Amino acid sequence: MSDLESRIANLETRLGLLEDEREIAALIASYGPLVDAGVADDVAGLWTEDGVYDVDELVMSGHAELAAMVRSRHHQQWIESGCAHFLGPVHVTLRGDDAVGICHSLMVVRTDGEFVLRRATANHWELSRTPTGWRTVRRTSRVLDGRTEAVDLLISGVRGEPAS
Amino acid sequence: MSDLESRIANLETRLGLLEDEREIAALIASYGPLVDAGVADDVAGLWTEDGVYDVDELVMSGHAELAAMVRSRHHQQWIESGCAHFLGPVHVTLRGDDAVGICHSLMVVRTDGEFVLRRATANHWELSRTPTGWRTVRRTSRVLDGRTEAVDLLISGVRGEPAS
Amino acid sequence: MSDLESRIANLETRLGLLEDEREIAALIASYGPLVDAGVADDVAGLWTEDGVYDVDELVMSGHAELAAMVRSRHHQQWIESGCAHFLGPVHVTLRGDDAVGICHSLMVVRTDGEFVLRRATANHWELSRTPTGWRTVRRTSRVLDGRTEAVDLLISGVRGEPAS
Repeated sequence: MSDLESRIANLETRLGLLEDEREIAALIASYGPLVDAGVADDVAGLWTEDGVYDVDELVMSGHAELAAMVRSRHHQQWIESGCAHFLGPVHVTLRGDDAVGICHSLMVVRTDGEFVLRRATANHWELSRTPTGWRTVRRTSRVLDGRTEAVDLLISGVRGEPAS
Repeated sequence: MSDLESRIANLETRLGLLEDEREIAALIASYGPLVDAGVADDVAGLWTEDGVYDVDELVMSGHAELAAMVRSRHHQQWIESGCAHFLGPVHVTLRGDDAVGICHSLMVVRTDGEFVLRRATANHWELSRTPTGWRTVRRTSRVLDGRTEAVDLLISGVRGEPAS
Repeated sequence: MSDLESRIANLETRLGLLEDEREIAALIASYGPLVDAGVADDVAGLWTEDGVYDVDELVMSGHAELAAMVRSRHHQQWIESGCAHFLGPVHVTLRGDDAVGICHSLMVVRTDGEFVLRRATANHWELSRTPTGWRTVRRTSRVLDGRTEAVDLLISGVRGEPAS
């Protein structure tokens, strides 16, 4: 009996890890659709209340700033002319109630009727388990133009370490 | 005993959800390779017998129309000159024997020896469990050129709702 | 009791399959970040000691040749000017201690300050379970420019068959 119980407990632990990783992958897979649809509060809700999105030209802190980015004239114009924030499959490292994810993204925009690659980016995600599910604590994104910051993000991300 | 049994039943339910989602993701991940290889019947087989693929310029209903699209001179020419139907990671919402998936796709074609982005698209998948596994009941795809239909698909897709 | 035990054994088997597939997907999802970061030994470590990477213009065999590719002036220049090896979601077929994966990839490079699509590629992965986890035994990649080798890879890959 105790043997069966320990096998069940082992299954519960292993299944929990897969469920955590699945939830994190789903959260990250929802970013592109949400941001390209311009639903500002849903985008912000992928982060914790005081979560940070640090992208090359801008650091946003907390839901209000995240939502303001989505509502900005600048972002809305991307949507109106056509754009896709295309994220690749995320590599996730779980550490209990924290996790690190790394993925590439491509920003595709429509300019003069043609789709063009505006940028390719390294995206490093630090996430935490909250009472309402996994949320992003800090996302750090750097354009892949040769800058060492982007390379450093890829390395720390794939190793499951926080962004430096 | 009854406690162990209820833990086992709980594991069976949770594992089944992950298996369903995995099967749906695999089905969608096979679309690009199959369509770029031009294997018409295999592409059609991703849909139910009377499944629908509603893409901007065309609505296909049932296996015969789906296979005809793949066999068309138009599609075969894409393959001959070089193309990639590149789909992103799918966000899946399960509801028992039905599911909704949403993902971006990029159609890359080779023109005059260069690879170019022909279009970026929102793809909304409605799927059902059949006796032979999950199949697509309706796939609705709209180019991300600012049209509200594409934005609406992204929103309903990520919320797990049918396409309107 | 024996009924409970058989249910537990069934769960263990099914969960093991999901864990295998998850590990393979994570391995493949780490290729892009590692190769774009230029960490040569980590890239090589995704293969078995004598693993092969057969790409159109080049066949590399074993860790030393794989790492040499990453360390090459050619590859380092891609990184310095900016590049993204962007892989799509992999479709995996498990067969015990062997597996086959298929995915598209896009190589994005920055040229004269602009990101361009250098190539779209079919990637066929043959993997094996080793004492230290899943590793790549052979990766075969062919540019999607209409050559039949690329189409053949897509078909064998999605069917879970070795590359011919």
